[in-house]
Amino acid sequence: MLTELGKRAKKAASSLRAATTAEKNKALYAIADALINNTEKILDANAKDIENGKKAGLTQSLLDRLRLDEKRIGGMANGVRLVAAANDPVNRVLTGDTRPNGLRIQKVTVPLGVIAVIFEARPNVTSDAASLCLKAGNAVILRGGKEAINSNKAIAECMREAVESTGLSADCIQLVEDTSRDSANALMKMNAYVDVLIPRGGAGLIRAVVENATVPVIETGTGNCHTYVDKDADIDMATKIIINAKTSRPSVCNACESLLIHRDIAQKAIPVICEKLHEAGVEIRGDETVCSLFEKAVPASCEDYAKEFLDYIISVKTVDSLDEAAEHIAENGTGHSECIITENYTASQKFIQKVDAAAVYVNASTRFTDGEEFGFGAEIGISTQKLHARGPLGLSDLTSVKYIVLGSGQIR
Amino acid sequence: MLTELGKRAKKAASSLRAATTAEKNKALYAIADALINNTEKILDANAKDIENGKKAGLTQSLLDRLRLDEKRIGGMANGVRLVAAANDPVNRVLTGDTRPNGLRIQKVTVPLGVIAVIFEARPNVTSDAASLCLKAGNAVILRGGKEAINSNKAIAECMREAVESTGLSADCIQLVEDTSRDSANALMKMNAYVDVLIPRGGAGLIRAVVENATVPVIETGTGNCHTYVDKDADIDMATKIIINAKTSRPSVCNACESLLIHRDIAQKAIPVICEKLHEAGVEIRGDETVCSLFEKAVPASCEDYAKEFLDYIISVKTVDSLDEAAEHIAENGTGHSECIITENYTASQKFIQKVDAAAVYVNASTRFTDGEEFGFGAEIGISTQKLHARGPLGLSDLTSVKYIVLGSGQIR
Repeated sequence: MLTELGKRAKKAASSLRAATTAEKNKALYAIADALINNTEKILDANAKDIENGKKAGLTQSLLDRLRLDEKRIGGMANGVRLVAAANDPVNRVLTGDTRPNGLRIQKVTVPLGVIAVIFEARPNVTSDAASLCLKAGNAVILRGGKEAINSNKAIAECMREAVESTGLSADCIQLVEDTSRDSANALMKMNAYVDVLIPRGGAGLIRAVVENATVPVIETGTGNCHTYVDKDADIDMATKIIINAKTSRPSVCNACESLLIHRDIAQKAIPVICEKLHEAGVEIRGDETVCSLFEKAVPASCEDYAKEFLDYIISVKTVDSLDEAAEHIAENGTGHSECIITENYTASQKFIQKVDAAAVYVNASTRFTDGEEFGFGAEIGISTQKLHARGPLGLSDLTSVKYIVLGSGQIR
Repeated sequence: MLTELGKRAKKAASSLRAATTAEKNKALYAIADALINNTEKILDANAKDIENGKKAGLTQSLLDRLRLDEKRIGGMANGVRLVAAANDPVNRVLTGDTRPNGLRIQKVTVPLGVIAVIFEARPNVTSDAASLCLKAGNAVILRGGKEAINSNKAIAECMREAVESTGLSADCIQLVEDTSRDSANALMKMNAYVDVLIPRGGAGLIRAVVENATVPVIETGTGNCHTYVDKDADIDMATKIIINAKTSRPSVCNACESLLIHRDIAQKAIPVICEKLHEAGVEIRGDETVCSLFEKAVPASCEDYAKEFLDYIISVKTVDSLDEAAEHIAENGTGHSECIITENYTASQKFIQKVDAAAVYVNASTRFTDGEEFGFGAEIGISTQKLHARGPLGLSDLTSVKYIVLGSGQIR
């Protein structure tokens, strides 16, 4: 069953490789229109998911992620239109040279082929992921969570019809309707048909994929992001940045989860910063120094420093030096986004050099690690691995390369 | 035990990340000198391997790969010096932009971290892989085949001493002395310490790695490379290219393994090309048309078309069209190097577009798919996967990226 899906995807990918930018854009605009025109059908399907979700006792926040309305569907259609308007990332010549023997070699971007995306309960991922993959010339196999299956089926169906109406194969976009763990596991091992697997979801999903997949994977997302307040920090700036990084959207991967504060500035900085965090409703888990300087703090456990809370909770630790901060980040960080607040030039350079993460910040909120904010347009996730792509995954990260070698009879 | 190695590698990688190009080059030149100065010691160790290999009944060609002499060690030292002379691939700014809010974002190359290399019986891989990894700022964990263990130990020991003598950590280069399958399997699952695993070896090793590894992998190597003789080919040129691609070094992955010939040119081309191949000692396994046009050909089985012979054997098949050739390649190829011989412009463009492989050639031998020949300098292998790097893996493929974000208090 999944093998059939894989075969069809591979065939569609092969035809999509030959499609022009104009043909792909036509399909994308048709998808956007189809989402709008099928709003009622999609909302009916979504209502079933919501009903089932309530029966199954899903949390309010999960139900909220699952719920679609006219505005959200409009947003999905708009997202697809922005992808259509973006530059085509394939068939670009990256480098080129002529060798001494006259061979002309070009390195050109090409589609990856078949991309599988495993995601959880957010039905908007269906159109986001499909449109990005299609624009980069890839066939996509979508495997969403069971909570959103009715919504995903309705969305996928109208996208497939739209694609087909413009002359491309409907199989450029396929949805796995079996939402059992088996189907996810099978997808992870379909090396003959899947070129890349991108998991989008929580730490559990990512771990399952890393442990079980035999196909190449782009790991996305968990972020235990630190903000380090250097001894030469501007405390007022630090406070504003930390409040933003922690509280503007605590549930996302680029939110600040842990605060490191240089001992020399602790006495001045901790009461001010912690008070503002507390006022914003954030629970503070601190070390001894923190608890002694801010009495509403509770003692932090070792595990707290390694935790991605995704909630109104923050761990706070005093450190003796920038080196200690960097070491703590190396041990506890997830390589997502790390920030130093300092007015000291040498400290800023040292932090940038020492800390190994997808994004390293000086004096700005880690919340900016995002495809749109970086100017890449829509993203399919944020890679925290070092292979292929790191940081926000834009359209150009959904491509591979091919060397084109033009000769006139050269032999070696 | 391996975990200890991993921890030390991670620590060494962290210090290596901060090393300047001059420091890394100093270590590389010291390695080259040490290889020369320890020639006797290395040859003594190699003699043990050769003796053990003979006792174990290794084939002559395996013994040949295993054998070192003064000249080969000189070649290894020279290879290391060339790596020292190459440009440093890290800390290069790839792109950069200032966002509307004033955030300055740079995308900079950084080392991958810890690279594990699993290889087979060629001891020269020890110094090749170590020097490339070190130049790109990575710590390397080498795990060679048991046949070469004495040679590898001697080589690794003198490289470690050399690195340490220049002030860098000896643990930038570590050798796994346990050559059991267990050590290879453990390395494949050491996600906490290994950033990338590169297997260098035959199809069996690559398969084992793809099936078992949970760490990110760059798949290298198997090449079922095709040469397609179009109906508008220059038969003389085709013959020269095919003889070169098949016979200049049949045991390597960029050698031609399969020939596709357009039916319209079969009658003229097959007798000429097959005769030359036969004269060069190549066994021809052909379809009915081939066997009827060249009587010394033997019938090919279906499996023959999917086989990487790595020997003086070639499969030959007649096709009705370029499309059929491209489909056959899609089904049987390994995405390594594929070539069309034609004088027809449209056919050349169609082949380039239709065939998905690391390197696609017009009118040249597939034997050119090689780091040196492409002008990249030494290579650590040829990637046949689509993620991260495809084709010859040069120094710049041993790097990742980091986004550096410079702010002045920006919040979102």
